Amino acid sequence: MNTPFFNAHHSPIGSFSSFTLGEKGSRGGFGLEIGKPADQAVYIGCEEASGVFRFLPFFEYSESDDERSRYEVGGASSEKTEPQSEIRQFTDHQISRDFYVSTDTWNAEDLEFTVISPFASVPDPDAIDTSDVNLRLALVPAVLATLTLDNRKGAGPRRAIFGYEDPHMLQASSNVRRLDDTLPEGLVGIGQGRSIAIVSDSKGVVSGQSLTMSELLGETNPKNLTFALGPATALIATVEPGEIRTFRFAICFYRDGYATVGLDTSYYYTHLWDRIEDVAAFALKNFENLSGIAESANSRIEKSKLSQTQKFMLNHAIRSYYGSTQLLRRSSGQPLWIVNEGEYRMINTLDLTADQVFFELALNPWTVRNEMEIFAERYSYTDRVYYPGKPETTFPGGISFTHDMGVANVFSRPHYSAYEKYGLDGCFSHMTHEELVNWLCCALAYGHLDPKWLSSKITLVTACFDSMVNRDDPDSDKRNGVMSLESTRCAGGAEITTYDSLDVSLGQSRGNVYLASKCWAAYVGLEKAFRDNNLAQLAAQAKEQATKCAHTVAASVGADGTLSAIIGEDVEARIIPAIEGLVFPALFGVPQATSSTGEYSEYIAVLKQHLKGVLHKGICLFANGGWKLSSTSDNSWLSKIYLSQYIARQVLGIDGDEVTASADDAHASWLLDPQNTYWAWSDQILSGHAVGSKYYPRGVTAWLWLSEK
Amino acid sequence: MNTPFFNAHHSPIGSFSSFTLGEKGSRGGFGLEIGKPADQAVYIGCEEASGVFRFLPFFEYSESDDERSRYEVGGASSEKTEPQSEIRQFTDHQISRDFYVSTDTWNAEDLEFTVISPFASVPDPDAIDTSDVNLRLALVPAVLATLTLDNRKGAGPRRAIFGYEDPHMLQASSNVRRLDDTLPEGLVGIGQGRSIAIVSDSKGVVSGQSLTMSELLGETNPKNLTFALGPATALIATVEPGEIRTFRFAICFYRDGYATVGLDTSYYYTHLWDRIEDVAAFALKNFENLSGIAESANSRIEKSKLSQTQKFMLNHAIRSYYGSTQLLRRSSGQPLWIVNEGEYRMINTLDLTADQVFFELALNPWTVRNEMEIFAERYSYTDRVYYPGKPETTFPGGISFTHDMGVANVFSRPHYSAYEKYGLDGCFSHMTHEELVNWLCCALAYGHLDPKWLSSKITLVTACFDSMVNRDDPDSDKRNGVMSLESTRCAGGAEITTYDSLDVSLGQSRGNVYLASKCWAAYVGLEKAFRDNNLAQLAAQAKEQATKCAHTVAASVGADGTLSAIIGEDVEARIIPAIEGLVFPALFGVPQATSSTGEYSEYIAVLKQHLKGVLHKGICLFANGGWKLSSTSDNSWLSKIYLSQYIARQVLGIDGDEVTASADDAHASWLLDPQNTYWAWSDQILSGHAVGSKYYPRGVTAWLWLSEK
Repeated sequence: MNTPFFNAHHSPIGSFSSFTLGEKGSRGGFGLEIGKPADQAVYIGCEEASGVFRFLPFFEYSESDDERSRYEVGGASSEKTEPQSEIRQFTDHQISRDFYVSTDTWNAEDLEFTVISPFASVPDPDAIDTSDVNLRLALVPAVLATLTLDNRKGAGPRRAIFGYEDPHMLQASSNVRRLDDTLPEGLVGIGQGRSIAIVSDSKGVVSGQSLTMSELLGETNPKNLTFALGPATALIATVEPGEIRTFRFAICFYRDGYATVGLDTSYYYTHLWDRIEDVAAFALKNFENLSGIAESANSRIEKSKLSQTQKFMLNHAIRSYYGSTQLLRRSSGQPLWIVNEGEYRMINTLDLTADQVFFELALNPWTVRNEMEIFAERYSYTDRVYYPGKPETTFPGGISFTHDMGVANVFSRPHYSAYEKYGLDGCFSHMTHEELVNWLCCALAYGHLDPKWLSSKITLVTACFDSMVNRDDPDSDKRNGVMSLESTRCAGGAEITTYDSLDVSLGQSRGNVYLASKCWAAYVGLEKAFRDNNLAQLAAQAKEQATKCAHTVAASVGADGTLSAIIGEDVEARIIPAIEGLVFPALFGVPQATSSTGEYSEYIAVLKQHLKGVLHKGICLFANGGWKLSSTSDNSWLSKIYLSQYIARQVLGIDGDEVTASADDAHASWLLDPQNTYWAWSDQILSGHAVGSKYYPRGVTAWLWLSEK
Repeated sequence: MNTPFFNAHHSPIGSFSSFTLGEKGSRGGFGLEIGKPADQAVYIGCEEASGVFRFLPFFEYSESDDERSRYEVGGASSEKTEPQSEIRQFTDHQISRDFYVSTDTWNAEDLEFTVISPFASVPDPDAIDTSDVNLRLALVPAVLATLTLDNRKGAGPRRAIFGYEDPHMLQASSNVRRLDDTLPEGLVGIGQGRSIAIVSDSKGVVSGQSLTMSELLGETNPKNLTFALGPATALIATVEPGEIRTFRFAICFYRDGYATVGLDTSYYYTHLWDRIEDVAAFALKNFENLSGIAESANSRIEKSKLSQTQKFMLNHAIRSYYGSTQLLRRSSGQPLWIVNEGEYRMINTLDLTADQVFFELALNPWTVRNEMEIFAERYSYTDRVYYPGKPETTFPGGISFTHDMGVANVFSRPHYSAYEKYGLDGCFSHMTHEELVNWLCCALAYGHLDPKWLSSKITLVTACFDSMVNRDDPDSDKRNGVMSLESTRCAGGAEITTYDSLDVSLGQSRGNVYLASKCWAAYVGLEKAFRDNNLAQLAAQAKEQATKCAHTVAASVGADGTLSAIIGEDVEARIIPAIEGLVFPALFGVPQATSSTGEYSEYIAVLKQHLKGVLHKGICLFANGGWKLSSTSDNSWLSKIYLSQYIARQVLGIDGDEVTASADDAHASWLLDPQNTYWAWSDQILSGHAVGSKYYPRGVTAWLWLSEK
């Protein structure tokens, strides 16, 4: 790592919350359901000498008396002196950081602070009793922390501090507060309203609140720590000289009552714990157990053969994924799993789900089933289709799925997304074919693990197949396996892909070799699904479509051995995601489909040759070795790069410096560039600058790296 | 009014919410539970010519594409042109405002916009069925609005618009949204999450959402108004040429579930309506009825003999009071009435209650009972007392009450306030004696209207009397009716008064002639209460204390005929609030106590002479004629000025330009000074600048003016 100062998520699973920390200044803090860091001042530090305090640099320090002057007008301060103390920050060279997937440790002189964010598989709530401790351990909306102060060489007692200040308190419904009077005996805490709590069960920790951190730490009368008006609050413990002590904390998030509108839901955890104080008590009681889970998660990645750079990116991506997760409960009692779309907060954006599916199937396969069922139930629709530019004549289309289910706790009306508009051919147009294929890829991949479920959905799967075929061509003789018709939902416009902010090379759906690769994969998976369900005729049709698709793409290869992004439209662009669909057959249980000696060997060979042909500077490599998804755009998407790196190595057998080492270095350097570090893990990087899809969950495509042989 | 551009609250009763409007720029909007305006951009206007729109100036307009650029990276916009329109603002000279207590009307050319904020007495929830329509009409968490566009001279159809944009949406839990799909048939709406809604039942109104207001209004495909990602949203109606049309709206606020922590409560209205959509439907169904209530409220003030300046200040103050009110329901089902303390949001600050009591007793007397009972139950305490500077020797004290019950939806632990600290003698010290007397004044005034209740509380009232006497002197022979001892809660410091940010003239409790006047009043009221309850001996003791107090103050008069602020401490300051206690005897049912020929005529005469003596420039008048509460501080408090103006005229019979006309002009000019207009009604004005107690409820002391003969 070039710098230890980058924000990272520290997030419980399914609580759409984050203790974001790492960027210098008041740029992290305790965020609940927001699309960015909370921009609070976080104080982690210790007393250096009596009345002088040294902190990690997670706040902007000023000597301002602004908060006091709101109350004391015209010089009305007490004749008794108000307390003050001296606040300093550690210098950069005193600070080091150890960043793992489930622990994040800061060292500065004789201080050590660790945030522990355990994660493991979440049991299927439909298949487990809510009293099961594993469900509770997985879903407790808390991360843990430890603060160690080594005062073995100290001459006097010194205090250790973990606190924060919310500069936006006037805009919030609830004040910062001390929690001691609402906590069970033996616990002390600070937090905000009913939704944020930092609680300790360590002996000797006391809570305090004040107008500023300086006043809080300078307070000489312990009773005055109960003052409840200020935005500054902290947990404080004293370490005697000769001692080294570790204090432990649970950092908890909680949202009561309804969490969403449009569809009424509540957080699943509210049915496991009645209030944030109960969450804290559970987390602290299970501190060792949860820490063990975190260690296991760390080990899983640290023991892998990934490079340090790969581990860094994977750890970072997993953290940002969990920060976007939200497990809700419908009024029917059914669970509802959501991954919010980072800074955009769109609900279960389906083209993200199709990239996160690799991670979800490995950790929590039931979430994929859950997502696909909600899409089928509430966010599907049926359209007609038309040839490009000829919307007046329509043909049967079929079922597809919306781009998303809403945005930021607002479910969109049934059968419509928050995102998709009418009459466009760029950003905000419909993604009908893309999402149809995404749903199929997710459902077929889950179905490989749960064939009974897939059988129960075979009618819907067949409707999806029909819908795909109709988008190829209304005339069965003219079908070539590739999308040719636009949805009437485009109202005269044209469909786009998940690469919505790219130019035609990846933005246009029709004839796109990226989308074609996913169509091919879907047809391959459909063939198997139909065969497994004794639907031989459909299986044969699916195979025919797969073969046509593979052939159409392969036949479009240019004289230079590479593929144009758009088949038959004389487009100059060359794109890496032409290979994307190759990731799926193995997940569908048909790994042989991507074999260089299998049925689709011609297609596979062309894609391999294509990738080799474009992985050059000036085409699909940036000057620094980073991957450029499209030769005609400087906007590249890390999640998709990770995915294609995996396919290159694992499916196509292409490796080398430009595939892995120097590419990874370039990609990590983007994430650690000072202009990007505020946003934790970000996806869209335009010439090194994170310009969109920030604070984003999609980077878990890198999880695939762990399965490379 | 010097300017129409000042923020004012438009608030439903008891919902701690406000549609704040009037200041230019993005400085108003829809605030729920916050201590300041919401700083949103509010769009109220109409189409001037096709595609060109003219609005009232309640937003900062910029042509920025910031919001779009979050999605469109690297020039990915649709080839189909994204819509744009031209946004302009009316100029100042085109705009006029009619500001009443319950309606607020803006006219600009052929546009008229009125916000209707009805208020009437709130029935006692303990004495009425929750299905009673009067309870619902009083408590519906909505204000109403009408928008009229006169297109009778128009050549083509023109659109009328009411919408807003939330620039803080990324920091909020929920997105801005259209409500149509969650509203009953026939209603359309816009809003945010489950908590803000603007809903119309007028024919032809449609809802829309977009990235910016310019794009929203330029949208040519009506289906694209359903786009749900942007922070801009509006209700839009078309007026055909030759028509004048009025569209009506309900502006609704709603908070589900628990509203507070420390003590678990929910909004009372959540037990009357299940969700914000139901609130909107009720408000629109009862539009005429609610408008009638608003007209009655307007009439009550407009038909009074108050001057225009007085009416302006009273209207403004009442609005800010309602913006701070919050009616909750405890888990026991009991109501809990709160007035939050403006920008500070402290809960039921008792020294504010004692000034708001005149208004509350006139409108909703049960709220005073409710507040006093919660203070007695949860926010009382018993202390000991000591002579100033001698904390080591303590004497029996007695019961008193905390300064407040917490802050910003956080109830403080039982028997402690959020505000009071230890060991101080200025701001944030304890107000033990002040709050004891405030509780008594409120309880005795309410008790005069409900003698049975007072009888039921007579043991507590007696304890309060004992507590007062103990703070006079432990030795009964040394008592002079005035506070001499400090509470042990001060821990060595000294008690302060509600004038916490003033110097010793009003800040110090001990020996203060302001506090003495309230003590005198309390003793006068206690005498009557004890007599009414056949407690003759206590009545005699109370009378003795009243007499001693009156005599002590009267005897301290200086050679110039005025009183020093502090008895016997050689303090130069002269203060107007020496007369404050005189407001109470009439409320206790003993108006004769303030008669110039009654038992306390000597005291009354001295106070009258004092007031006349200090109401001069250089003493207790500012250069502009505004009242200066203390001769030694430039910080003056409008609520207290209003109160003392009333006492001067109604109790002491002093009037004239310096009491009323020129003083009122000065006070109104403070509120309308551009540096103060953002904060609606504010209390603490330091040399013309609102420096504290902004956005404040306390100005309803001016309600007393209506009862002047």
